[in-house]
Amino acid sequence: MPDTPPSSVRVRSAHREDVPAIVRLLADDILGAKREQASDPLPQAYWDAFDAITTQGGNELIVAEIDDEIVGCLQLTVIPGLGRMGLVRGQIEGVRVSSTHRGRRIGELLVAAATDRARELGCGLIQLTTDKSRVDAHRFYERLGFEATHIGMKRAIEQ
Amino acid sequence: MPDTPPSSVRVRSAHREDVPAIVRLLADDILGAKREQASDPLPQAYWDAFDAITTQGGNELIVAEIDDEIVGCLQLTVIPGLGRMGLVRGQIEGVRVSSTHRGRRIGELLVAAATDRARELGCGLIQLTTDKSRVDAHRFYERLGFEATHIGMKRAIEQ
Repeated sequence: MPDTPPSSVRVRSAHREDVPAIVRLLADDILGAKREQASDPLPQAYWDAFDAITTQGGNELIVAEIDDEIVGCLQLTVIPGLGRMGLVRGQIEGVRVSSTHRGRRIGELLVAAATDRARELGCGLIQLTTDKSRVDAHRFYERLGFEATHIGMKRAIEQ
Repeated sequence: MPDTPPSSVRVRSAHREDVPAIVRLLADDILGAKREQASDPLPQAYWDAFDAITTQGGNELIVAEIDDEIVGCLQLTVIPGLGRMGLVRGQIEGVRVSSTHRGRRIGELLVAAATDRARELGCGLIQLTTDKSRVDAHRFYERLGFEATHIGMKRAIEQ
C-alpha cells in the first residue's frame, strides 16, 4: 500500500519565484534529464515560458509543497471546443513529483486538485498523454480512473 | 494514389456563421454521430463554445471550403509550457472532412495549414490524440510525419 500523503503537504497555484524549483522537478526525471537545463541562473526561456503561461488565458501551474519545498507540479490547460456539444476539456501536462517524495500519493493529490480546478472552470473531461515508456504512470492514471482510449502523436515543427 | 486537392479549396479561419456547418461535419463521423446534435436551430451550447474559443487566447478554428461549402475543419490550441526549455506546443483536435470529400487530401491541407499557423505562433511541436479505433487516422498522421509516441488517457469529470 502506498503511504498516505504527508499531512503538511499543501497544493497551490505556482508563483513566478517557484520557476527554478519547478524546472528542477522537470529535470529530475528520466526523460526530462535530457531535455531540461536547471542551471543557476536559469535560462531566460523558462522565465519567458512562465510569463506566457500566465498571460495567455486557460493555463495554470499547480504545485505541491512540504515545509516551503516544492515537491510536485503539473500544468492544467482549459480547452474550449465545439465537439461533444461544446464540451470544455481540462488537459494536464508535466506532472512531476520529486524523486525523494515519490510513493507518498503527492501525484494523486496534484491530479485531484487539477480535476477540482477543471470542474470549477466548467470542464466535463480531463485528459492527458503520457509517453509510452512510462509504464508506472499508466498504472497510476488507471488507478485514478483514467482510461487509455487514445493514441498520442507528435511531430517536431521546423522553424 | 490519393487525388490531389481540388484547386478551388480554400483554407481560412472560421467565422461565427460557420458554426452550423462545422457541427454538421463533427456529426458526420462514426463517433461524432452519437455525440453531436446538428439540429436547426443549433443547440445554444455550440454558439457558447464558439464564443469561448474565440475569447480565450490560444485557440483557433480553421476550415477548408470549396465553392463556399465548408468541407473540413480542425481546432488549433497553442499551449505554452515550462517543459523542454519552455517549448510551446500546438495541439490539433477535431479534424474532420466531409464524407463526400474524403480521399482528396483536404485533411492534409488542413493539418499543413495548422502546422504553418502553429509555427508562426512560435510552436516547436505539434501534437494530437486520436481514438484508438480510428486506424485510418493513425496511418494518415504517420504519413504526415507524426509519431505515435504517447498514450492518450481521459476521464469524465462529474459536475
